Amino acid sequence: MEIRLEEIKLYLLQLQQSICTSLEELDGEAVFMDDKWERAEGGGGLSKVIQNGAVFEKGGVNFSHVHGKLPDVLKSETRNAEYFHATGVSIVIHPQNPFVPIIHMNVRYFCMSETAESEITEEWFGGGIDVSPAYPNETDTLHLHTLLKNACDPFDETYYPKFKIWCDDYFTIKHRNEMRGVGGIFFDHLRPKHETEKAELFAFLQSVGNSFIPVYEQIVKNNRYKPYTEKNKEWQFIRRGRYAEFNLVYDRGTHFGLRTNGRIESILMSLPPHAEWKYNFIPEAGSEEEKTLTFFQPKDWF
Amino acid sequence: MEIRLEEIKLYLLQLQQSICTSLEELDGEAVFMDDKWERAEGGGGLSKVIQNGAVFEKGGVNFSHVHGKLPDVLKSETRNAEYFHATGVSIVIHPQNPFVPIIHMNVRYFCMSETAESEITEEWFGGGIDVSPAYPNETDTLHLHTLLKNACDPFDETYYPKFKIWCDDYFTIKHRNEMRGVGGIFFDHLRPKHETEKAELFAFLQSVGNSFIPVYEQIVKNNRYKPYTEKNKEWQFIRRGRYAEFNLVYDRGTHFGLRTNGRIESILMSLPPHAEWKYNFIPEAGSEEEKTLTFFQPKDWF
Repeated sequence: MEIRLEEIKLYLLQLQQSICTSLEELDGEAVFMDDKWERAEGGGGLSKVIQNGAVFEKGGVNFSHVHGKLPDVLKSETRNAEYFHATGVSIVIHPQNPFVPIIHMNVRYFCMSETAESEITEEWFGGGIDVSPAYPNETDTLHLHTLLKNACDPFDETYYPKFKIWCDDYFTIKHRNEMRGVGGIFFDHLRPKHETEKAELFAFLQSVGNSFIPVYEQIVKNNRYKPYTEKNKEWQFIRRGRYAEFNLVYDRGTHFGLRTNGRIESILMSLPPHAEWKYNFIPEAGSEEEKTLTFFQPKDWF
Repeated sequence: MEIRLEEIKLYLLQLQQSICTSLEELDGEAVFMDDKWERAEGGGGLSKVIQNGAVFEKGGVNFSHVHGKLPDVLKSETRNAEYFHATGVSIVIHPQNPFVPIIHMNVRYFCMSETAESEITEEWFGGGIDVSPAYPNETDTLHLHTLLKNACDPFDETYYPKFKIWCDDYFTIKHRNEMRGVGGIFFDHLRPKHETEKAELFAFLQSVGNSFIPVYEQIVKNNRYKPYTEKNKEWQFIRRGRYAEFNLVYDRGTHFGLRTNGRIESILMSLPPHAEWKYNFIPEAGSEEEKTLTFFQPKDWF
């Protein structure tokens, strides 16, 4: 059973569509707008964007498949390859209500070859799902980690614990020694050694992708009608500022896009609709805002 | 005539104080708050911050003098040096009114030596002033460039044209092929070859530092009472988003601070109080917002 690029793309496009349909149902008001784009050097994508909804203030569910001559900035990461394909679905959702967390998902597949026509010499899968709330919520976070563990365990019981730690490490705002949120899973460079393994890794990728809606739907439903104050909104804006800091300073996907002449609006759709930076803002002692920062510290959920 | 570090520091501290006094007078309501900080590895600083003023929404006028063992990340830039001193004044002001531009200034002095006690083996001056408006304004921009040229010309007539181009190059948001604002001057690594030259470069640095208030005062007075709409405010928020993008992705001072365990709140005081990112926001054809982007293109003012 040989898995081909076309098959992976087909899955990703279907995933994008089904996630958008579910998010539109959840929102109840706004719909996604399509933005199809082409990349001069090869390939392109379909960005789907929702804005000013009842639940979602700004969100992007982006599919892309770019290919062409390998950019110099990537050559250090590969052997002999001159040609690459990269395809994936990338999601960031910024909700209105400060008690509904930001969610991020990415599932991706890379392959390299010596020329556009020749055999694949190297390939890998990568991805992850993670959540960045503005307030602590045990129920939601346990739900997130349970579903992610369930998505991993059938494939390899070492996946969840490994990819959970990888996620905690990756989504650290190093200059603040602060976590972006409550983590999830993150993995990269999962390289199949043969076709059977490739089929397994692709099935694992689908397992992660398919868990996005079950994860987020419940979290949204738990919190979307919670009343909130100006102060809650202000804290959400400050946490969104942190989100922007992480993405612009550290995120590898963002930097990859900026360095490879990617489509800027699709890359930076991850940035929050509104964000704030107050000088030296320190939450009141004992407040929910203060508790958030402790709650974000990595911990074992099982 | 030997210029010593203490003399440079004294000037910088006086400059900080006099700029804060002038900005408080201009604002008429808010005053600067002092935040003194120490750096575990050596030195420290005095951050002066104004927030929620009548004219200035958020601004920082920061003095710092840090010293100690040269961090590894800087070793490639220097010869044999193990010990460094860096001192400077850094300013970013975010005004309330969208017709008053953001202004940025930095004046700095670095020196290196083999040990904490030994002779200076290498030293340089750097700095600049640049302005990031949300709307085109010929009068203000010509005023800015005239005063900067006047600050440069007595020292070297090649300075202004060279440092103006350097500024245009530096403050480009490369991934958008867009300028952060209308430029100004930027210079770095001005290395004196002997004491007389050091005295001259220090005098030049003072000439730049002392032009901050004459530059900004007039621009503030020209625009502070201009009426504005929601739409003007939205465009200001979008331009502030661009400002944050530049600082977090490209700014060397910011990255230097983040990599050398600098004081985060003082480094990131440059970030806007409130910023917005809308998906694929394109200003209306023929609008003032659209004209801004053309106005920002580098041009000769004389």
